[in-house]
Amino acid sequence: MKLLDSATAPNPRRVRIYLAEKGIQVPVEQVDIGKAANRQAEFLAKNPFGGVPVLQLDDGTYLSETMAICRYFEVTNPRPSLFGESAQEQAVIEMWQRRMELYLFNMVTGCFQNTHAFFKGRIPQVPEYGEVCKKNALSRMAWLDGELASRKFIAGDRYSVADITALCAIDFGKPSNIRIAEEQKNLARWHQEMSSRPSAKA
Amino acid sequence: MKLLDSATAPNPRRVRIYLAEKGIQVPVEQVDIGKAANRQAEFLAKNPFGGVPVLQLDDGTYLSETMAICRYFEVTNPRPSLFGESAQEQAVIEMWQRRMELYLFNMVTGCFQNTHAFFKGRIPQVPEYGEVCKKNALSRMAWLDGELASRKFIAGDRYSVADITALCAIDFGKPSNIRIAEEQKNLARWHQEMSSRPSAKA
Repeated sequence: MKLLDSATAPNPRRVRIYLAEKGIQVPVEQVDIGKAANRQAEFLAKNPFGGVPVLQLDDGTYLSETMAICRYFEVTNPRPSLFGESAQEQAVIEMWQRRMELYLFNMVTGCFQNTHAFFKGRIPQVPEYGEVCKKNALSRMAWLDGELASRKFIAGDRYSVADITALCAIDFGKPSNIRIAEEQKNLARWHQEMSSRPSAKA
Repeated sequence: MKLLDSATAPNPRRVRIYLAEKGIQVPVEQVDIGKAANRQAEFLAKNPFGGVPVLQLDDGTYLSETMAICRYFEVTNPRPSLFGESAQEQAVIEMWQRRMELYLFNMVTGCFQNTHAFFKGRIPQVPEYGEVCKKNALSRMAWLDGELASRKFIAGDRYSVADITALCAIDFGKPSNIRIAEEQKNLARWHQEMSSRPSAKA
């Protein structure tokens, strides 16, 4: 088994934090996305969409998509559970994971991809859409601050994959100047707690 | 338990097909998205993002996000499995579900939302981004046609949530003129088979 990783990209970080929280060690190989190694034929044979991370299983299967990789380890190593246990808890965590991914993470990365020089020539950039993404991300952070007034973690009283997605989203907001506002005390408290966990350095 | 549904929108259709495949009956209430009932305070208290479907559980919990609702029923009614069984099968289905959702479904809906009159005034439309979405959707359908040359279903030899997402994506391409091309025989064969299942009418 081997994880194809990239130290600076936000999706591989989600998997690294997940593995650290579970206490799972996996051999890692770096993919140089700065040099577009992920757009070369050798990598595209592993993931036709060119995204990192990719998990190579021992039978030669290549698994891509961050949450699919996490799901694999959730089934092989169920404890501590980061996807929830009862039907309702699993569904609530899935709901919050998706809210954090669709309405925050994808907005932060959408802003970066459509406005930053790194993606120039890599995708057809639409800066106006990048600005819509930024506005959406900022307004959802304001909303999230209110949600976190009444609970410790994003999806309830248990640390979960929703916290991982939200942390990686907010930290990746930096190059686009998408930051926690001074008055967002609950979001700042949560961010401080998540960043203090040893897994945040993974 | 009650499902807040909307007969014309693509995400509620994913849940209806899922329930039909599982043989699960749930009381349904229609939300009139044409009259923007989903943007009114009463609905936003159930789902702050205004999306349908929403599942109201018997304890009063509101579950939103299509795949979270499906996940709830997958845990309460595991057979037939539409998310897979072994760790590897679950992960492969999750990977394909996400590929169909992120790279096809979200491109089809992104085109519609950013170019169609229905969304004028509902969201800040960026038509140029809508055109990028359309191009992406069409190129991914061409790629998918090649994938389906060697297997019956999207994620392998088992019908899964990945087929549901892909079917709803392709059918919702109609108003944006995102259609299966004449030469895409494998995709057309798969589409014909999926559309012939009784669940497709749900």
